[in-house]
Amino acid sequence: MDVDKKYFNNITPRERAIFEGAITMGAIFHQFDGTPVNKESVESLEKAMQDAMQLQPCIEKVEVKINRKLLENIGNEFQYTSLNGNMLDVRVVSVFEEEKIVIRMEYIPELDYPLMYVEEID
Amino acid sequence: MDVDKKYFNNITPRERAIFEGAITMGAIFHQFDGTPVNKESVESLEKAMQDAMQLQPCIEKVEVKINRKLLENIGNEFQYTSLNGNMLDVRVVSVFEEEKIVIRMEYIPELDYPLMYVEEID
Amino acid sequence: MDVDKKYFNNITPRERAIFEGAITMGAIFHQFDGTPVNKESVESLEKAMQDAMQLQPCIEKVEVKINRKLLENIGNEFQYTSLNGNMLDVRVVSVFEEEKIVIRMEYIPELDYPLMYVEEID
Amino acid sequence: MDVDKKYFNNITPRERAIFEGAITMGAIFHQFDGTPVNKESVESLEKAMQDAMQLQPCIEKVEVKINRKLLENIGNEFQYTSLNGNMLDVRVVSVFEEEKIVIRMEYIPELDYPLMYVEEID
Repeated sequence: MDVDKKYFNNITPRERAIFEGAITMGAIFHQFDGTPVNKESVESLEKAMQDAMQLQPCIEKVEVKINRKLLENIGNEFQYTSLNGNMLDVRVVSVFEEEKIVIRMEYIPELDYPLMYVEEID
Repeated sequence: MDVDKKYFNNITPRERAIFEGAITMGAIFHQFDGTPVNKESVESLEKAMQDAMQLQPCIEKVEVKINRKLLENIGNEFQYTSLNGNMLDVRVVSVFEEEKIVIRMEYIPELDYPLMYVEEID
Repeated sequence: MDVDKKYFNNITPRERAIFEGAITMGAIFHQFDGTPVNKESVESLEKAMQDAMQLQPCIEKVEVKINRKLLENIGNEFQYTSLNGNMLDVRVVSVFEEEKIVIRMEYIPELDYPLMYVEEID
Repeated sequence: MDVDKKYFNNITPRERAIFEGAITMGAIFHQFDGTPVNKESVESLEKAMQDAMQLQPCIEKVEVKINRKLLENIGNEFQYTSLNGNMLDVRVVSVFEEEKIVIRMEYIPELDYPLMYVEEID
């Protein structure tokens, strides 16, 4: 079966790249939110998030940065916290045919919200 | 701050609707995959998935159907299973300005994969 | 196969009740952390969390209360937030043979941490 | 505040070790179930699961093995699958005072279920 022809002939290549990148961004947030994390474990978590999410259709690259500053002042005696969206800075590079886009998630202080948007598009 | 003007002026209203709907579809899968479920609990799970995911930006409606047939023949003695993508049939209705689209996730037997695609678009 | 005899003959009934209740408490936190929630959706989320987690072995009852106060002052323009452990007050009633225990999770301000502990035990 | 004295004086050190280990086992399953995985990404996922879950209270070590055989015959064209409990073989070493226990999760074919049990205890 030609999946692209059968299921995706109603959208443009540019829209397809947006579609697949956005799915992956939603997936990253909701898969890993809640994971225990501190300064010792943060690197392996970032790497696993990247490696896992790069497997998804049309995803060329995923870059995950977890805010180290938010890991420095952990206010509890257990020396770790739970990953939440406000700690995340993520770029997802999505490609379909000639179209390549970058989707970004970053915490926007004015919004008090981890906003997802299209950062680069032709 | 005008979020739409600042962060989304590089994509069309149609692309914005695709973008937001796709995020929500990725989110649904990865938030709830793994939840214990059987025939007794399936309705409240569907409802919670819908109510939660309708909160996301630009999402007008979410319809979740979990395949009852896959809940009938649970092969273990514990009488429940873990929700997985292959059980899910989901429609996300996403609206931005005049644009309204429907994104679908359904298990495609030929692909052995829960495919996400744009089902309805003008 | 007699699962109890084969896999659980090295612990007492009281320990078994603790074991199963603790598994379920860890599961609740990590399954649902990150779910979008506000005052409109909170009830169906609580119900789904209860119904799903009561399916696990030896679990008689699960009571989930999500802190409404933390849903009142949502500081962003999107009118919802992501569920996190600090919002949760959960009781899991776990029973094995004659032993019945209650496990509790609640946010402890002094610890700035959602603590899980055994609340009631004979 | 002395957390152990205030919240855990109703259970023995052995019960405490069981309690904390079981929480972590429930957490591992429900945090990571659903993560995209294939043979290329499996190692970084195992490492992140271990590093994250070793942060939890009383956890000395976590060993995660994801079944490579189940990653070899992925029946879809996308060359990855979603992590599920049946692929997992996990050991959690939990210590409180003099008590040290090992909790195991492994898929039991006769049960068609990823069983969690206490593997080693004095």
